[in-house]
Amino acid sequence: MELGPPGGAGPAEPGPRLRGLRGDDRAASAAWLSEASAGRRAPSVAAVLPAGGSGERMGVPTPKQFCPVLERPLISYTLQALERVCWIKDIVVAVTGENMEVMKGIVQRYQHKRISLVEAGVTRHRSIFNGLKALAEDQPNSKLCRPEVVIIHDAVRPFVEEDVLLKVAIAAKEHGAAGAIRPLVSTVISPSADGCLDHSLERASHRASEMPQAFLFDVIYEAYQQCSDYDLEFGTECLQLALKYCHTKAKLVEGSPDLWKVTYKRDLYAAESIIKERISQQICILMDAKEDEEHVGRCLEEMLKKELNHVKVTSGALCHAGRDLQQIILEQCYNFVCVNVMTSDFEETRKLLNALEESNLSILYPVVVISVHFLDYKLVPFGQKMEHLMQIKEFAKEVKKRNILLCGLLIYYPQE
Amino acid sequence: MELGPPGGAGPAEPGPRLRGLRGDDRAASAAWLSEASAGRRAPSVAAVLPAGGSGERMGVPTPKQFCPVLERPLISYTLQALERVCWIKDIVVAVTGENMEVMKGIVQRYQHKRISLVEAGVTRHRSIFNGLKALAEDQPNSKLCRPEVVIIHDAVRPFVEEDVLLKVAIAAKEHGAAGAIRPLVSTVISPSADGCLDHSLERASHRASEMPQAFLFDVIYEAYQQCSDYDLEFGTECLQLALKYCHTKAKLVEGSPDLWKVTYKRDLYAAESIIKERISQQICILMDAKEDEEHVGRCLEEMLKKELNHVKVTSGALCHAGRDLQQIILEQCYNFVCVNVMTSDFEETRKLLNALEESNLSILYPVVVISVHFLDYKLVPFGQKMEHLMQIKEFAKEVKKRNILLCGLLIYYPQE
Repeated sequence: MELGPPGGAGPAEPGPRLRGLRGDDRAASAAWLSEASAGRRAPSVAAVLPAGGSGERMGVPTPKQFCPVLERPLISYTLQALERVCWIKDIVVAVTGENMEVMKGIVQRYQHKRISLVEAGVTRHRSIFNGLKALAEDQPNSKLCRPEVVIIHDAVRPFVEEDVLLKVAIAAKEHGAAGAIRPLVSTVISPSADGCLDHSLERASHRASEMPQAFLFDVIYEAYQQCSDYDLEFGTECLQLALKYCHTKAKLVEGSPDLWKVTYKRDLYAAESIIKERISQQICILMDAKEDEEHVGRCLEEMLKKELNHVKVTSGALCHAGRDLQQIILEQCYNFVCVNVMTSDFEETRKLLNALEESNLSILYPVVVISVHFLDYKLVPFGQKMEHLMQIKEFAKEVKKRNILLCGLLIYYPQE
Repeated sequence: MELGPPGGAGPAEPGPRLRGLRGDDRAASAAWLSEASAGRRAPSVAAVLPAGGSGERMGVPTPKQFCPVLERPLISYTLQALERVCWIKDIVVAVTGENMEVMKGIVQRYQHKRISLVEAGVTRHRSIFNGLKALAEDQPNSKLCRPEVVIIHDAVRPFVEEDVLLKVAIAAKEHGAAGAIRPLVSTVISPSADGCLDHSLERASHRASEMPQAFLFDVIYEAYQQCSDYDLEFGTECLQLALKYCHTKAKLVEGSPDLWKVTYKRDLYAAESIIKERISQQICILMDAKEDEEHVGRCLEEMLKKELNHVKVTSGALCHAGRDLQQIILEQCYNFVCVNVMTSDFEETRKLLNALEESNLSILYPVVVISVHFLDYKLVPFGQKMEHLMQIKEFAKEVKKRNILLCGLLIYYPQE
């Protein structure tokens, strides 16, 4: 089944997209991208994502690809990483029958594009094979096209960058198969039958085989069609299948540490921290353009800049311009401090919340809004002011449904 | 050099200590422990911790073992994990000359016991060798004793449990050498000279060699004395040295996922989250025993219990008993909510802070104290109350120096 219109771009990922390419790679990718953008004979690329695993190593009942990270399922981050790459035409995800509805819900809720779902097999290899079959055009009613190159990736590697996808795709086109590798973190040993050390492998001459991998579609499809039931049940390595059944020696591509696979519970913690760090790079202070508000805003900006290293603090006046704000939202700032000085109500905060709701900013990541109010009990009767401000709880409840985390900050600020 | 008195136990680690032992292991460990506790011919055990690495994979200038996790250097957590094991008599840490003073500072500040520092070598193997030499009694002025069994562990594996230390020590006594292993997370491949896949290894018949490892002291010391400069420079695997030079086949012991090595920045994030989770298992609500305070306390307890699953919420009356509070501190509760109802000052909070400062609770982990105050502007002039409450900022600054994080929570609570 096919979900959503093809070719549409989802909301983008914060962070760099095409870093780390050098020399020949850069030239090759430039050629590839210009072919792609000119619409000429660009090689067609699709991706297959096996997501049928049960995640037993995680020690939690939910399969790890569906575990929430900042309340969004892990697999959604991986889909986001793939769909932001415009030259990947189709993304085929293999999920078990029992998770099919969950997966459809995820695609819809987070507005993922170019996604097709197929039924997973009992093992990883069978799931990949099902994904390839769906791309092979021999399925009735399929809108998918047989690609020239297919990328295979894991649902639980959410931080894959475009550069490594491009590198494996280019290498696959040239060599027939390619895969990302990483240095080994631990020494690998071979145990004897009695549970003792037989020998240890020289670490320098071995590598960990990671994902993504890419193949000429014909090579890997042929390999899967030929391979034995034993391979489909117990094999782990797609590169090995291409070697064994198609005599295709995969090109190995050095990957970055970002390629790591979310395997244990601690990896979920790490993923959450990495994402939090990414969306905390920028804070925007919004205020009215009146003079004293501007003054307070500048003070706040100076203070925040001093406290928060590595965080870009900007401030903008709301009333000048919805335009300024639109620009800031487009730049994917996820943190706002909204100053309400003289008005005892939430005028500035309301404007901001409206603008945020109109944008799609909070679909993928939570947006934090701190509504700042100043309390001078001599000007306004205190009880009245407090009761008024308590409305913020209702606001907060309302916008929470749209992934906007609103909180109020009351600053005691006597006029003298 | 030797720091601190031998045999003293440092503050304990929260969490289970001897879980996961089964059948024969349990019997063997029971025998070992009873020998140890009876003071009879218990095998003497020491540990060597190479900590001379530069942590280049972390991408930060500080060597990873000194990176802060909740503001405490990672290595301190590892030392804590080793020193809480009473049958490890000496812990020898190898650090580079330039980090020697830093390391002494860590041992002193966090009150680590049974630690001796030696100079690290240029490579991991040379550092371990230096540690072994210090234990071999051929150093002048050394107070260390040559142990029967030596455990080698990494400074960057802070979550090692007593059970796996015991398992490798017991297996080393029997087999001469033993090491913890884990299943491989990724397939291991062997590249050919042209950067292509030569072959992939069958994942099921290989394991990752982790730490801790343990050896009969004579075996590993002999191996290091015999091994070549090449081994000392480029080798990675101590088990391999024992095999090669002493024909000792190491027993392999299945380790838990906790043994993982902090290698990348994401691992620091994971470590921090794991520790935060551990110290957030319990919240204690403290209040005066007066009737309305008791009532408010119970309401708060019910609310917190509803909001925080998996967190043990207890409440206790302060005035009855320093004793109750002492008990709670002994049980290593790191989170306190202190209710100050009728008094406009900080009487309850002060009592708690005094008790915390007298204990050693905040040496290893931050202690969080939330001081709750109720605001009824009709009873006390508002401005006066606010100014009074602002004192909490000064308190907070003061106790922060002792790793106590104090914050105030003002609840608007009109009498009607």
